[in-house]
Amino acid sequence: MIDSQFMRKKTRQVDVRGVKIGGEATISIQSMLSVPLTQTSLAIEQTRSLLAAGCDIIRVAVPDEASLRAFETFRKEISAPIVADIHFDYRLAIGAANAGFDKLRINPGNIGSPERIRAVADAARSAGIPIRIGVNAGSLPKDITKATPETLFEAARREVELLESHGFRDIIVSIKSHDPALTVAANRLFSNEFDIPLHIGVTEAGLPGKASIKSAVGIGTLIMEGIGDTVRVSITGDPVGEISIARDILRACGAMSGGIEIVSCPTCGRTCVDVVAIAGEVAARLPDSKNHIVVAVMGCEVNGPGEACSADVGIAGGKGEFLAFKKGEVVGKIPAENAVAWLIDAVECIIKGDS
Amino acid sequence: MIDSQFMRKKTRQVDVRGVKIGGEATISIQSMLSVPLTQTSLAIEQTRSLLAAGCDIIRVAVPDEASLRAFETFRKEISAPIVADIHFDYRLAIGAANAGFDKLRINPGNIGSPERIRAVADAARSAGIPIRIGVNAGSLPKDITKATPETLFEAARREVELLESHGFRDIIVSIKSHDPALTVAANRLFSNEFDIPLHIGVTEAGLPGKASIKSAVGIGTLIMEGIGDTVRVSITGDPVGEISIARDILRACGAMSGGIEIVSCPTCGRTCVDVVAIAGEVAARLPDSKNHIVVAVMGCEVNGPGEACSADVGIAGGKGEFLAFKKGEVVGKIPAENAVAWLIDAVECIIKGDS
Repeated sequence: MIDSQFMRKKTRQVDVRGVKIGGEATISIQSMLSVPLTQTSLAIEQTRSLLAAGCDIIRVAVPDEASLRAFETFRKEISAPIVADIHFDYRLAIGAANAGFDKLRINPGNIGSPERIRAVADAARSAGIPIRIGVNAGSLPKDITKATPETLFEAARREVELLESHGFRDIIVSIKSHDPALTVAANRLFSNEFDIPLHIGVTEAGLPGKASIKSAVGIGTLIMEGIGDTVRVSITGDPVGEISIARDILRACGAMSGGIEIVSCPTCGRTCVDVVAIAGEVAARLPDSKNHIVVAVMGCEVNGPGEACSADVGIAGGKGEFLAFKKGEVVGKIPAENAVAWLIDAVECIIKGDS
Repeated sequence: MIDSQFMRKKTRQVDVRGVKIGGEATISIQSMLSVPLTQTSLAIEQTRSLLAAGCDIIRVAVPDEASLRAFETFRKEISAPIVADIHFDYRLAIGAANAGFDKLRINPGNIGSPERIRAVADAARSAGIPIRIGVNAGSLPKDITKATPETLFEAARREVELLESHGFRDIIVSIKSHDPALTVAANRLFSNEFDIPLHIGVTEAGLPGKASIKSAVGIGTLIMEGIGDTVRVSITGDPVGEISIARDILRACGAMSGGIEIVSCPTCGRTCVDVVAIAGEVAARLPDSKNHIVVAVMGCEVNGPGEACSADVGIAGGKGEFLAFKKGEVVGKIPAENAVAWLIDAVECIIKGDS
């Protein structure tokens, strides 16, 4: 991972119950409960699973007064930052600020008049919590009939000005579409004009496989260009699955450290060892790691020794056996049938030494 | 999909048996056989599977003379563009040019002296085929001890100059690493200096799930910045699986048209219909499409009608039923249990109308 490549655009910082967004802060990972707050024990359980997976900030839908009441019980169990997702009803937003939520998310296309937004801003200010403006191609203001980078930017600009005209600057903005190219283009425009921290993601990205790719293209491009302070991956499915995708995207960008990275070749006509089976078994059996550990499983002599040598541990295949490497040094030859056990043992030694 | 966002850096064009790379040409998709040419009927079968999946150009390892001989039989069956992947032995490269391969891939770190590279260039010129210089972080020239964006760029620059000093300009370059951030940074440097078409990819990306994400971040970022003329996704596994990942990445970038795009929400506490099951079933049952068709499966009234309305066909959920949309118009309400059948029927109608 090359740290020097990772230069972020400087944004001002907001605080969500101790998790900083923007400025020099680590890029945080968000998700959203798929169960309602009113099913409180299920909501608590899903929240704990998300936190255990590495989620930093969790959003919940607040569609009614009952959700506000349920939050009282929920809060006693959960101290992590919780965001109230409000649509249509500004009184719920005010209620959420008063109920102790740590951030509000307002969709400017549907919250109502400037006066109502002002009332919400006042409530957020009193509670000392930030507001995320969530511009979404699927719910733009009525006078905007087509989602383009420029109209998405314009929708975000209007709402920012509205909040800022009331002296409220504790803002995060998201601009999302299901189209990664549109999402990237709109966020580039916004990032050029404002120092407001950006929450980035590709919305309604679909089912896991394709959603990972759309999210990695959209979020990845922005992060690689230094844009984005907090991320949400949206998949149709269990939200816990979003967290490992988000981490993999951030790690691929060099924006998050840690984890075991398996470098394994696609195999070709030169390969005389079963790289696919060995890499698969190693991936399935290796534990997670706080530190970044690179494990190379390479099939032949072309890129094999180079990659295996630059990995923390690695094997490069010949005919029925592998050259074994640790930290750049050949440490011996191992028969193919012992390769998995040797790699796992070597990684576990590194993890023990690390901790 | 927003066409206007997709502005490509202009490169000069090369021709690989009729498939153009660079200039205004469509971005092509490549892969590599995992079986040796000497297992000729297996090689032919895998090639046909790759072509059927949408692969444009196929590379094969040529590690020995037997592979050159096997190519004679192979060529009688396969007319698609085939690239010979040569390492270590420049005589094999010359042999491949003479045997009728459509492009050579040379790894500059291991092919040998400038004189040998010149001899290969002469053979390629006589055969009228291009050469890809394949710089790889795992196999750099011996005097380069660390892979950085600058050293990868330098390795590519040297070899380009070597070929061009012999008057050979029919070149494609790739600069790859298993680290997407390093890959992006090195390709940005190269693209700034040269108008040579770029073959882009993240090498040794690992097993399918994480490899998709690393590839989408690396390839996606470059394509979104207008860099890249042909792509290869490298996964440890069946190469046929690489093609749909490559297509999904290109489509996410707005760089390839066609395909059915399912826009489905991640669901939240508002959702009263089983979006996950419906989206999953629709995805599994829908056929492929030459034209781009957007199918929205949305759970609630917040972004639902907006997304469903902008889709070709869409449903937006309420309580146990959906509002149904076609081309921006509400066409009725349908019970949740009929949603899958209605969507599939609607898409099939569009496909019939398209074809």
